[in-house]
Amino acid sequence: MDSQQFREFGKAAIDFVADFYDNVRDGDVLPSVEPGHLLKKLPENAPEQPEDWQTVFKDFTSTIVPGTTLWHSPQFHGFYPTGTSFPSIIGGLLSDGLGVVGLTWMASPACTELEVVTMNWLGKLFGLPEEFLNCSSGPGGGVIQGSASEATIVCLLAAKDKMTRRLKKLNPDIDEELTKIKFIAYTSDQCNSSVEKAGVLGSMKMRLLKADASGRLRGETLKKAFEEDKAKGLIPCYVVANLGTTGTCAFDPLYELGPVCQEENVWLHVDAAYAGAAFICPEYRDLMKGVEYADSFDVNAHKWLLVNFDCSALWVKDSYDLINAFDVQRIYLDDVKAEVKIPDYRHWQMQLGRRFRALKLWMVLKIYGAEGLRAHIRNQISLAQHFAKLVRADDRFIVEPEPAMGLVCFRLAEGDILTKKLLENLIEKKRIFMVAASCKNRFIIRLVICSQFTNKDDVEVSWKLIKDETDKLIPNDKVHIKSQSIASINHIQNISICEKSK
Amino acid sequence: MDSQQFREFGKAAIDFVADFYDNVRDGDVLPSVEPGHLLKKLPENAPEQPEDWQTVFKDFTSTIVPGTTLWHSPQFHGFYPTGTSFPSIIGGLLSDGLGVVGLTWMASPACTELEVVTMNWLGKLFGLPEEFLNCSSGPGGGVIQGSASEATIVCLLAAKDKMTRRLKKLNPDIDEELTKIKFIAYTSDQCNSSVEKAGVLGSMKMRLLKADASGRLRGETLKKAFEEDKAKGLIPCYVVANLGTTGTCAFDPLYELGPVCQEENVWLHVDAAYAGAAFICPEYRDLMKGVEYADSFDVNAHKWLLVNFDCSALWVKDSYDLINAFDVQRIYLDDVKAEVKIPDYRHWQMQLGRRFRALKLWMVLKIYGAEGLRAHIRNQISLAQHFAKLVRADDRFIVEPEPAMGLVCFRLAEGDILTKKLLENLIEKKRIFMVAASCKNRFIIRLVICSQFTNKDDVEVSWKLIKDETDKLIPNDKVHIKSQSIASINHIQNISICEKSK
Repeated sequence: MDSQQFREFGKAAIDFVADFYDNVRDGDVLPSVEPGHLLKKLPENAPEQPEDWQTVFKDFTSTIVPGTTLWHSPQFHGFYPTGTSFPSIIGGLLSDGLGVVGLTWMASPACTELEVVTMNWLGKLFGLPEEFLNCSSGPGGGVIQGSASEATIVCLLAAKDKMTRRLKKLNPDIDEELTKIKFIAYTSDQCNSSVEKAGVLGSMKMRLLKADASGRLRGETLKKAFEEDKAKGLIPCYVVANLGTTGTCAFDPLYELGPVCQEENVWLHVDAAYAGAAFICPEYRDLMKGVEYADSFDVNAHKWLLVNFDCSALWVKDSYDLINAFDVQRIYLDDVKAEVKIPDYRHWQMQLGRRFRALKLWMVLKIYGAEGLRAHIRNQISLAQHFAKLVRADDRFIVEPEPAMGLVCFRLAEGDILTKKLLENLIEKKRIFMVAASCKNRFIIRLVICSQFTNKDDVEVSWKLIKDETDKLIPNDKVHIKSQSIASINHIQNISICEKSK
Repeated sequence: MDSQQFREFGKAAIDFVADFYDNVRDGDVLPSVEPGHLLKKLPENAPEQPEDWQTVFKDFTSTIVPGTTLWHSPQFHGFYPTGTSFPSIIGGLLSDGLGVVGLTWMASPACTELEVVTMNWLGKLFGLPEEFLNCSSGPGGGVIQGSASEATIVCLLAAKDKMTRRLKKLNPDIDEELTKIKFIAYTSDQCNSSVEKAGVLGSMKMRLLKADASGRLRGETLKKAFEEDKAKGLIPCYVVANLGTTGTCAFDPLYELGPVCQEENVWLHVDAAYAGAAFICPEYRDLMKGVEYADSFDVNAHKWLLVNFDCSALWVKDSYDLINAFDVQRIYLDDVKAEVKIPDYRHWQMQLGRRFRALKLWMVLKIYGAEGLRAHIRNQISLAQHFAKLVRADDRFIVEPEPAMGLVCFRLAEGDILTKKLLENLIEKKRIFMVAASCKNRFIIRLVICSQFTNKDDVEVSWKLIKDETDKLIPNDKVHIKSQSIASINHIQNISICEKSK
C-alpha cells in the first residue's frame, strides 16, 4: 500500500468513523451474532497474496462491524463509560503516524515531555495537592499507565519494595523473603476485581474488608483489621481506597483511612478510575477530602474524560518509590543529563516500551478546554438525575442507593426475581444494555450515562424501553399489589458486583 | 468538535501522516531540542476555553513534531525496529473509532473472535506446533499482549502458580508461601532487561547465566545451574530462552534447553520479540528447532511485522495455566455459553480491559498478505548483508559477530576508544542513529535495518556517513598502521547491552 492509497483509504476510514457517530442512535446496542460467528465466517489461513484496501474495507464493514457492541450508543448503560471523542481519535492517529517509542528521552523527547506537561495540566484541573505534580520542587509526578489495573499493581509492587527497605533499615539482619510474605494489603469488599487481582499478581495477601451500609470502607474497620493482622504477625503494607466503587459508586472517606495508614507507614493508593474525572468540577472535590494522605492517585482519563482507551493517569508523591522498585540498571541510554527534571518513564512502569499516549490527552484538553470537560461531566450527571426522577415517579420502582455521578441503581419493588427477569428480558431484546450489581443483598440494575452523545430525549427513550418491558411483567393496573412483594432470593445474594474495564 | 470538523481535521491528519512518510528521508534522525524544551514552551495550565482544530494542528506540527525522533527514517538504526505501516495505522484508527472494550465476549464479540482468528493465522505462518493454536482441539491458544515485557511477566506468574499447584498436589501439607520463595528463574546474561525486570516484578529470584562465546545459553550451563540451586534447596521454576538477543541477535538452542526444562517440570518461555518475525520464512525455522518443548512463545508483531505498537503475540500450550493464575472469580458477565471454544481473554492477561488490537494485525495480514510480509523480512535481511559487505571491504573495520537478521555489529580495528568516539561523533551530528553493545568485552556498534522504507541507496548513505566520520578519525592513508591497535579498555567492559523497547 503506497501513500496515495493510504490517503484514499485513510479518508474513507475517517468518513466511516464520522458516519458511525452521526448514526450512533441506529441499530441495536448488542449485536445479533452467535459465539463463533467470525470463527466460522473467516478463512482458516491468512491470505498468501495481498488484498486491495477496498476489499478489506468492505470485509471490515460487512463482517467485523456487525459483531461489535455499540459502546457509544445512548442506550449503552453498562459498566462505566469508555472514553472516545473526535480529538482523541485524531490524537491516536497522529501518535501511530509518528510511530515513536518513548523508552528514553532521546528516543523521542516530545513523547516524554508532553506527558509531563499534560499530567501537570490534568493534576491541576483535579485540584491535586502540588506534591503530586512534576512541576513541584519535590519528587512527585504523574505518568500515564495503560489501565487502573496496572496502576494498582505498580503501586502495590512499589509499596512492597518501600516497606522492605524501611524494615531493612530498621533491622539490617531481617530475611527479606521471609519478611515479604508477611505483608498484607487491604481494600473494601466493594472494590473492582482488578484490585483483588493486583494482590494475586503481586504475591501479596489481600483482605476485602466489609464496607458500611453506604458501601464505604471506614477508618475504624481498617484500624481494627490492622490490629488483628499485626497480632497474627502480619505486616500491613498497602491499602486501596475506592473513590466511586464499581457497583454503586460509593466513596471511601480518605480523611478516615489516611491517618490510619499514616500511623503504620502503609501506602495509601486511591483508585478513582471512573468518578475521579468529576474532580475537575470543584463542587465534587469534597469527595476526595483527605487526598493529601495518599501516596498515589489514579483516574482513568479513558473512562469519563473523552480520551480513548488506554490512558490511565497515575500520580505519585515520590517517584523514587517507583524507580527504586522498577529500575533494572542495565540500560545504556541514560541520556538525560540536564538541569531540568525529566523523568525516565520506563522506570515508572512495568513495561519497557511506551506509546505516545500524551498526544490524545493533549488534543482532548486543548479542543474541549477545561470548561468543555466540566460541561460534559455536569451534563452527564444531570442526565442521570433526570433518569432517576423518571424512575422515582413510577411506584413499581425503587431507586437505591442515591444516584451518584452518572450512575443510577434501581430495582423493582416486587423483588429480586422480577428485577432479574426485567434485566434479562431487556438484554435479550438487545436495544439497551445495563448490568447488574448487588446492594444490601438485593439484586439491582445499574444504569450509567455512558455515551457522550446522550441527551434528555435519549434518556427518555431508555426509560421507555425499561417501562414498556416492565409493563409486560407488572401491568400498570396491578401496581397496587406491590406490597405482596416476593422475598429476596438467597441464591442470588452471592452474585458479585459487576465489572467495568480497568 | 462536531463530525464535520472531525472529517476535516481527520483528513488533514491523514495527509500529514502520508506526507510524513513521503518525506521520511528529510531532516535529521535525532531532533535538535534540549531537555525541557516543551516544558518551557508550553503553558503551565490547560486552556480554559476550547481551541479550534486548526490552531491545535498548527501547534502539533510546529511544537510537537520537531521534538520527535524519526524512528522510520532509513538512517534510524538503533535498538530493533518498531512497526508501523499504512494498513496498521488505519486499523488503529478504526479500532479507536469503534471504541469498544473487549472485557467479555458480549462486550464486543468481534474483538474477541478476530483475535482468535488472527492469532491462529499468525501462529500458522510461523509454523508453530498445532498445540499452541486456538484452532487445535487442546487447551492451547494465542493472545495479544501489550509487550514482550508483559508476556514474560504473565508467563512467569503462571509458571509460579503451576509449580505451586504441582508441589501442593505431591504434598498437600507444604506451606505455599515458604515454598514459593524457593522458586528460581533462569535466562542468559544476554537477555533484555525486561526479562530481568520480570523477576523483580514477579518476586522470583532470577539467575542470568553465562552465554557461550556466540552469545547462546547452552543446555549444559542450564543443567548445571539447576543442580547447583537444587543442592541449595531452591526450586527451578521458569526459564526464558532468547531467540534473537538484544545485543547481538544470538539464538539460544531450544533443543538443548527444552529437555533440561522438561526433566524438571520447569516452564520454558521463548522470547523471540524481534527475530521471531523471520519464522514466517521457512528458511529460518531451524533457529527455533526444539520449540515443541516450549510452554509459551512470544513475538512482537509490533517490531518487525509492520504492526504498530502495541501488539505482542503470545501463544501458550495450555491456556488453563493462565486462567488458573489470573482468574479472580468475581465477574458477573461470564457470558459465553457456547459449544465453540471462545476464550475470556481478560483471564489471559494482567489487566481487565482490552483494546481491539486484532484489527490492525488483521489489516496488515490482509493488505500485505503472507507473501508481502515474507518479502519484507527477506529484503531487510539482504540489506543488512549488503551493509556488512560494505563494512568488510574497509580494512579499518571488523564485523563481529556474524550479522544475523537485520543486525550488523561492527567495530574499528583500532580499538574501543576510537569505536566509541566514532559513535559519539555520529550521534552528535544527529543524521544517523545507532546504539552500542558489548561483545567479547569489546565495545561494538549495532546497526539495524529498521525502517520499512530502507532501500540499497539508503544503506549506502548510512555507510557513507559512517565512513566519512571515520576518515576524520583514521585517515584512509593511515590504514596500514592499524596493527598498532589500542588495547581494549577495562572501564567500558561493564557497559551493558543496549536495549530495545519491549
